[in-house]
Amino acid sequence: MEIIHDIASIKQAIKKARQAGHTIGLVPTMGYLHEGHLSLLRQARADNQLVILSIFVNPLQFGVGEDYEEYPRDLTGDAAQAEKTGCHIIFAPTVKEMYPQGYNTFVDVEKLTDGLCGASRPGHFRGVTTVVAKLFNIVTPDRAYFGQKDAQQALVIQKMARDLNMDLDVIIMPIIREDDGQAMSSRNAYLSHEERKAAPILNHTLIQAASQIQTGERDATTIRAQIFQAISAEPLAAIDYISIVDATDLTDVIKIKGPTLIALAVRFGKTRLIDNIIVEV
Amino acid sequence: MEIIHDIASIKQAIKKARQAGHTIGLVPTMGYLHEGHLSLLRQARADNQLVILSIFVNPLQFGVGEDYEEYPRDLTGDAAQAEKTGCHIIFAPTVKEMYPQGYNTFVDVEKLTDGLCGASRPGHFRGVTTVVAKLFNIVTPDRAYFGQKDAQQALVIQKMARDLNMDLDVIIMPIIREDDGQAMSSRNAYLSHEERKAAPILNHTLIQAASQIQTGERDATTIRAQIFQAISAEPLAAIDYISIVDATDLTDVIKIKGPTLIALAVRFGKTRLIDNIIVEV
Repeated sequence: MEIIHDIASIKQAIKKARQAGHTIGLVPTMGYLHEGHLSLLRQARADNQLVILSIFVNPLQFGVGEDYEEYPRDLTGDAAQAEKTGCHIIFAPTVKEMYPQGYNTFVDVEKLTDGLCGASRPGHFRGVTTVVAKLFNIVTPDRAYFGQKDAQQALVIQKMARDLNMDLDVIIMPIIREDDGQAMSSRNAYLSHEERKAAPILNHTLIQAASQIQTGERDATTIRAQIFQAISAEPLAAIDYISIVDATDLTDVIKIKGPTLIALAVRFGKTRLIDNIIVEV
Repeated sequence: MEIIHDIASIKQAIKKARQAGHTIGLVPTMGYLHEGHLSLLRQARADNQLVILSIFVNPLQFGVGEDYEEYPRDLTGDAAQAEKTGCHIIFAPTVKEMYPQGYNTFVDVEKLTDGLCGASRPGHFRGVTTVVAKLFNIVTPDRAYFGQKDAQQALVIQKMARDLNMDLDVIIMPIIREDDGQAMSSRNAYLSHEERKAAPILNHTLIQAASQIQTGERDATTIRAQIFQAISAEPLAAIDYISIVDATDLTDVIKIKGPTLIALAVRFGKTRLIDNIIVEV
């Protein structure tokens, strides 16, 4: 496995792969890999002849006062894990390589980014779509893989690719969870022992809500109130948002019908965790 | 020469050309071709094995009260002219094909779009960069050709391509003029006989300004005042802007030095004309 830090060299590698007629799978990440990321890499390996893992903690998608500086980084550990999945190349550019002096071009997906994390983190999705557009243009993947844990991000990227006529498949893979149900996340590393013990309340509450819907409850306000109550009972948890939305366009749902996304963002101390579930009605 | 109206078919044609190892040149236009456009097509033909002319009057780059509805259209005439240059394919999509219901993704180049036409036409360049990003993704050209007449547009597109790591050369070709010096423009068709007779004052004033700079004048305020005076003397002309800027980053110039762009936008009746000259000092 090769680790490449500059755009010219990765383009060279891509060109060679294309000349050999190889298909290319891209897994864009911010590194500090966990089983969620590895599941994307394994799928990419199964689908493509060349697998590229990008690792870039993208300053553009962090707001003022967010955790850009503290975001955990471990390229050596990541490389060891990635290699075991059969990944061929890690592309780990510097900030200066991605955003040279005078950088000024941005990609926005409107509407889909208004609610959920878009409302709590202004500018976040502009950062995500801009860096992913750049990575798509650099790597020219046939397929790119994203996790369902960042449900809104996955939809926003699919929408960007479709709207801008980008020639690739954006593939969304299921959430991978710890044994206690907690969704895998690089940010779990921030949690204190007590916070980590309390965090699975997100997953448990989501499962409970889904089962209530499956047994007949259709009123989003009722479901939302029950989630609110359950999470509020945990003293370490501070709710950022509870959203019950159409799973395809993220518009608010009043009467639950069709594929529905229940998405949460909850703070444990300084750590903001997200989780979600899709219910098919 | 083939005329293609849908994205799936043009992608098919592109794929075939790529399989044959052909290079692709794209000339993006809004149609109603004149010698300026034809000069781009001829250059594209000289540089590439497949030449694609796109014709799309892009609603996104017209503001409220601008001339989107009236913009002249003549696909039959355009096709006859394009064919003579050796163009292979005209891609003339419908608005619905380019912006299907729910379209919501936009590309912005900041700073470079603040002044000149960006200041007079808010949202204009967002429309331009968005449609050109889409055309680049659909056609995947090796080279794309733009005219120096839209000096700011050409720089903005070069900047977008560089910032977003788009893999093509954006080539800027010289302004083509009528015998009386008037820059070729599809919008010249709007002018009354009297307005058309008066319009070359733009070119004449620009030449005069350039020659003053070449003979030693370095004060932008002085040059600007002289241009203002010369054009104001024409009763049919109403000045929108006179800009003297650094030709690479479009920042205002006080003491003229290095490659300098003098750019004008002037209304004749309801018609807004632009023209410019670059002076190397």
